[in-house]
Amino acid sequence: MDRESLTEKIVSLKRAKGISWKKIAEEIGRSPGFATAALLGQMSLTKEEAETAGQLLGLDENEIALLQQVPYRGSLPAAVPTDPLIYRFYEITQVFGTTLKALIEEEFGDGIMSAIDFELSVDRVPDPKGDRVKVTFNGKFLPYRRY
Amino acid sequence: MDRESLTEKIVSLKRAKGISWKKIAEEIGRSPGFATAALLGQMSLTKEEAETAGQLLGLDENEIALLQQVPYRGSLPAAVPTDPLIYRFYEITQVFGTTLKALIEEEFGDGIMSAIDFELSVDRVPDPKGDRVKVTFNGKFLPYRRY
Amino acid sequence: MDRESLTEKIVSLKRAKGISWKKIAEEIGRSPGFATAALLGQMSLTKEEAETAGQLLGLDENEIALLQQVPYRGSLPAAVPTDPLIYRFYEITQVFGTTLKALIEEEFGDGIMSAIDFELSVDRVPDPKGDRVKVTFNGKFLPYRRY
Amino acid sequence: MDRESLTEKIVSLKRAKGISWKKIAEEIGRSPGFATAALLGQMSLTKEEAETAGQLLGLDENEIALLQQVPYRGSLPAAVPTDPLIYRFYEITQVFGTTLKALIEEEFGDGIMSAIDFELSVDRVPDPKGDRVKVTFNGKFLPYRRY
Amino acid sequence: MDRESLTEKIVSLKRAKGISWKKIAEEIGRSPGFATAALLGQMSLTKEEAETAGQLLGLDENEIALLQQVPYRGSLPAAVPTDPLIYRFYEITQVFGTTLKALIEEEFGDGIMSAIDFELSVDRVPDPKGDRVKVTFNGKFLPYRRY
Amino acid sequence: MDRESLTEKIVSLKRAKGISWKKIAEEIGRSPGFATAALLGQMSLTKEEAETAGQLLGLDENEIALLQQVPYRGSLPAAVPTDPLIYRFYEITQVFGTTLKALIEEEFGDGIMSAIDFELSVDRVPDPKGDRVKVTFNGKFLPYRRY
Amino acid sequence: MDRESLTEKIVSLKRAKGISWKKIAEEIGRSPGFATAALLGQMSLTKEEAETAGQLLGLDENEIALLQQVPYRGSLPAAVPTDPLIYRFYEITQVFGTTLKALIEEEFGDGIMSAIDFELSVDRVPDPKGDRVKVTFNGKFLPYRRY
Amino acid sequence: MDRESLTEKIVSLKRAKGISWKKIAEEIGRSPGFATAALLGQMSLTKEEAETAGQLLGLDENEIALLQQVPYRGSLPAAVPTDPLIYRFYEITQVFGTTLKALIEEEFGDGIMSAIDFELSVDRVPDPKGDRVKVTFNGKFLPYRRY
Amino acid sequence: MDRESLTEKIVSLKRAKGISWKKIAEEIGRSPGFATAALLGQMSLTKEEAETAGQLLGLDENEIALLQQVPYRGSLPAAVPTDPLIYRFYEITQVFGTTLKALIEEEFGDGIMSAIDFELSVDRVPDPKGDRVKVTFNGKFLPYRRY
Amino acid sequence: MDRESLTEKIVSLKRAKGISWKKIAEEIGRSPGFATAALLGQMSLTKEEAETAGQLLGLDENEIALLQQVPYRGSLPAAVPTDPLIYRFYEITQVFGTTLKALIEEEFGDGIMSAIDFELSVDRVPDPKGDRVKVTFNGKFLPYRRY
Repeated sequence: MDRESLTEKIVSLKRAKGISWKKIAEEIGRSPGFATAALLGQMSLTKEEAETAGQLLGLDENEIALLQQVPYRGSLPAAVPTDPLIYRFYEITQVFGTTLKALIEEEFGDGIMSAIDFELSVDRVPDPKGDRVKVTFNGKFLPYRRY
Repeated sequence: MDRESLTEKIVSLKRAKGISWKKIAEEIGRSPGFATAALLGQMSLTKEEAETAGQLLGLDENEIALLQQVPYRGSLPAAVPTDPLIYRFYEITQVFGTTLKALIEEEFGDGIMSAIDFELSVDRVPDPKGDRVKVTFNGKFLPYRRY
Repeated sequence: MDRESLTEKIVSLKRAKGISWKKIAEEIGRSPGFATAALLGQMSLTKEEAETAGQLLGLDENEIALLQQVPYRGSLPAAVPTDPLIYRFYEITQVFGTTLKALIEEEFGDGIMSAIDFELSVDRVPDPKGDRVKVTFNGKFLPYRRY
Repeated sequence: MDRESLTEKIVSLKRAKGISWKKIAEEIGRSPGFATAALLGQMSLTKEEAETAGQLLGLDENEIALLQQVPYRGSLPAAVPTDPLIYRFYEITQVFGTTLKALIEEEFGDGIMSAIDFELSVDRVPDPKGDRVKVTFNGKFLPYRRY
Repeated sequence: MDRESLTEKIVSLKRAKGISWKKIAEEIGRSPGFATAALLGQMSLTKEEAETAGQLLGLDENEIALLQQVPYRGSLPAAVPTDPLIYRFYEITQVFGTTLKALIEEEFGDGIMSAIDFELSVDRVPDPKGDRVKVTFNGKFLPYRRY
Repeated sequence: MDRESLTEKIVSLKRAKGISWKKIAEEIGRSPGFATAALLGQMSLTKEEAETAGQLLGLDENEIALLQQVPYRGSLPAAVPTDPLIYRFYEITQVFGTTLKALIEEEFGDGIMSAIDFELSVDRVPDPKGDRVKVTFNGKFLPYRRY
Repeated sequence: MDRESLTEKIVSLKRAKGISWKKIAEEIGRSPGFATAALLGQMSLTKEEAETAGQLLGLDENEIALLQQVPYRGSLPAAVPTDPLIYRFYEITQVFGTTLKALIEEEFGDGIMSAIDFELSVDRVPDPKGDRVKVTFNGKFLPYRRY
Repeated sequence: MDRESLTEKIVSLKRAKGISWKKIAEEIGRSPGFATAALLGQMSLTKEEAETAGQLLGLDENEIALLQQVPYRGSLPAAVPTDPLIYRFYEITQVFGTTLKALIEEEFGDGIMSAIDFELSVDRVPDPKGDRVKVTFNGKFLPYRRY
Repeated sequence: MDRESLTEKIVSLKRAKGISWKKIAEEIGRSPGFATAALLGQMSLTKEEAETAGQLLGLDENEIALLQQVPYRGSLPAAVPTDPLIYRFYEITQVFGTTLKALIEEEFGDGIMSAIDFELSVDRVPDPKGDRVKVTFNGKFLPYRRY
Repeated sequence: MDRESLTEKIVSLKRAKGISWKKIAEEIGRSPGFATAALLGQMSLTKEEAETAGQLLGLDENEIALLQQVPYRGSLPAAVPTDPLIYRFYEITQVFGTTLKALIEEEFGDGIMSAIDFELSVDRVPDPKGDRVKVTFNGKFLPYRRY
């Protein structure tokens, strides 16, 4: 069984059992951002976390082992994503990429925001005109090394 | 003069005058996210805002008019960005795109986070192990219309 | 069973049973645009709608559940579509994209037509020189947020 | 002067003179869809139409001649458009392309909606929850020839 | 069974039975251009034509039904074809595309040659220096609609 | 002056002088297919032909020399052409490529239709339902060498 | 069984039986260049040749028939090959393509080297500093037809 | 002046002076393959060679210096070449790439033919049925290092 | 069984048996760089090495034979890798490619670092601020042949 | 003046003055890897460093300012590099990417080698069979954050 099939199976089991990503995250003891990414095949779990997740969803031993392996990352089937929800993040990069670069460099100097030493979270912001999605990226600033 | 050349000129004038993006934003009366995007050719300014920016930077009338025009958006020269700072946002979309989709849909149902009714901000989070970049996206949730 | 196989199965069952998309849409209580998109794996149905569709076509429980799940959207196998009927819509975007941008912005200001809060319909316009296809897109105008 | 530079010049003159696309269309005696496309370098004008447009905008003889020439069509700088307004039309094709194919073929049989014997219009639909954009495509149905 | 597998099966049965495309076309009562395209999954047959073809080749009911369905067109596995015979047609488009455009527009005005109301034929032209292939495209001229 | 600029200049001079491609072809003593391709930078002319063309259009000596040079061929700005007239030929290759391959190989055996020892012509076929464009490709059949 | 699977099977049988490409070529009575290409699915064999090859390798009747069919050519999984040995030939085309064009045209005039009426061979050139690979392409010169 | 412009200038001067690539090669004291590649911007010349070439063609000092600089190699404007002469070499790689790999590895073991320690030559092979182009690649065999 | 499936099986067996790449390399008697590449389907092993590896992992005879075959190289599913660890090497090529070219050519003259007569190693460099990865590429310098 | 033109000018001045990259690096007080990258437009210099470099090469004030600005990084004109020296690094990523991933993860766990907190160096390794290029990448290991 490869990782992609396991992801499909997990999504299917989760639907059948009616468990939410947040619930699984709570059981594992990780934030929803981390836990969901791991179950969707983009992060690796520790043995313990994988076993907890496996019991919740009903995975076999081999599948639980697969959850602990570092995956080949990249969750999208094309360079420019076609799914509208995910495309909006690509659009933000396309339209506001130079803005993000300008503001981060003005504040921090020459470097990047790490996507490895990195957390993401999704929150609901109630708003009478329609609730809003708040997505937060929190990554360590890494300055270019001068040598 | 096309918009791309104006962007280059603005960056060059800003460097020569030593003004920060935040300062320009403050003068215009907009947040740094919005004002920087506008000056980099991704958002349009009102007549007043454009004139303020024009005076700060020393733009001529035609250039000030150009700042008020809706641009053809897209700030990057390639579908997959090569600049490491900007690439990290592409990487986040590639690696965490399905996670963002899963969490937003679990919380809000079937729909998207708007990239139009949308704000972005960049903040510094002090951290003894190295300060962190916090990027916040805040967009209205738009449910798919059922008809 | 993944969503793509389900779509293939639905098309096959529909052919075997000789039911039209319009008929299914009517039974479900949605417009043909919405219902067809949902059955082709691009929109999600409510539990009730999915069950109605499932009974009409003869789907099993798991397949009916799959119809209620939010799909990874994108219905075409390539960035530039090869099917002539669908290509014509791509061609319209390529040739008239800047025209649509100019006219929408002249009428509404800086923003977009939503493809989420959005309806589409297809109608026949009788014409002695050959009937015409009328495709209508109806989406909420979303102005860019100024912040 | 090539056609692309003429398009840029026309946009710039129009801004300076403060004329709308609709006004130019009216003067030429064509619909806004057709006239705007022609001035943006995607359709050709007759001699008379080109002269009217030229006088309104202040074009020279050579430029007026260029407006009458059939252009090499295609108005976008990339296969997948980056501008959010235009991208939404690409998204509609990606997400609803198979739906459009299914509905047109169910109603008309095997063939296409012409993008040549074709009209487009953009209208405002007032709505208390926010006005809506209505885009209408009206093209002759062309059945595949059987031979 | 999807259309692609059916195409493979048809090619295989045809080889085993030693029937030519021309023979099948004759039986169906269509030209070789149309009939071959239909059997290769690019055109749809009527019920009667599909049954004739099915009997000749030994297809089952479901496969005969599939021959009557409008296919998702596009017969090549890549945007630039790798097969040398087919590439030559791509090369002709690349090298002589602007020539074809110039000559058609000079003769007919602004418009296109339809690829829908369209016939193609392949003939042998005996020539002492080596026989020649004559490919004829015959499509209705469609002028751009002025509106 | 590079070949592309010369092509643009030739198109512009031709428009100003009101000469047709057919007329130029006749003066040069070549068919319209060949002569137009040569003037659009895809074929080379002999010294005599180039001089005749140069006099007709008003080219200088250097430009006349350029007409005699073998060009780097390829007349389109993208792998998939965006111009609707030219795209139709690409569409024919995409949709009917395997049909052309099947019919040519059935008639001639394993080989190709040459695109070098090759002629093309464009003709008008009067038709009461709308005149038709007839495009003929005539290329030597080249069998694969067995060695 | 499609041609690609047959190619894989042939490679596997050849390894198991320890026969060389040269040996198979000799048995078939063709050069190694031709015979290897045919067995790798890029050329077609005659009935007799296919039967000889089939007996050597242990193929069944259907597979022997497949060897006689004209294949859809193109042996690489990507437009730019990733395998280093094959990439070097791509590199030669990229780096020396214009040189080859210049030298062939200087010697022969405007035309091409045929890749159809074409032979290739691979030889070893002993060299004290390390043996050398000599690859020879031998193709008929085809002048562009003037018409 | 960049290298690409210099290449264009050299081609233009060569045409004006009527010197052949072979003649220049002879004067420089290199083979036509090497010398032509160098003048087309793909190889570097020694000081002496560059000066000889410069005098023959009439280049200035700066241009002669540029001929001695190592270029950024790659002589084609697209990944898949559009020029038919050059495309044939790409086609050979596409169709016969796996054959070349099979034969070289059978003869030499696991490794590649170097495209650096490499010579190419173009020769005419007289043939009563039409002369043939013989292209020879001669590169050192490099075995993969085992470590 | 094709090579890709074998790679997947090897990774799975290795996980189940808890053996490290370094351990396998040691048993085979090759460096970790070479041995890991071979087991991941990018290098070929000798009979003896393959048998040792096969016994360690529990492969059958056919699989052991496959390990000795020269593979079609290229280990990534896309031209621009999506996995962050591997992308960093792509990024280094994109950002520092011209630097590597400048420094190698300054030191060695016109040529390349071989990727065939080549070794790679990965080492840990302890560092109080966080350990560092040291990747070393060691390839023979190959000067361009002058001929 | 944009950064790309400055890079071209710097290369040209360096050639005219006959200074080596190593010499400039020494004057600036940085390693050759860093200094060369900065002058080729991929890293930014401090004011002092930029002035030193400017004096060495003869740059004006504006150009010296440009050297201190953070560039939009990415030094190659295509996603797959065509220059053979640079391509070899791409090839290493393609062929050995999964090997590097396997070895780094075995040694360090789940994470990446930073390309930001990163040094590169190029050294000559004398070897009687031909000197070797040693390229060293030294980057901080960054473990994925667990949160």
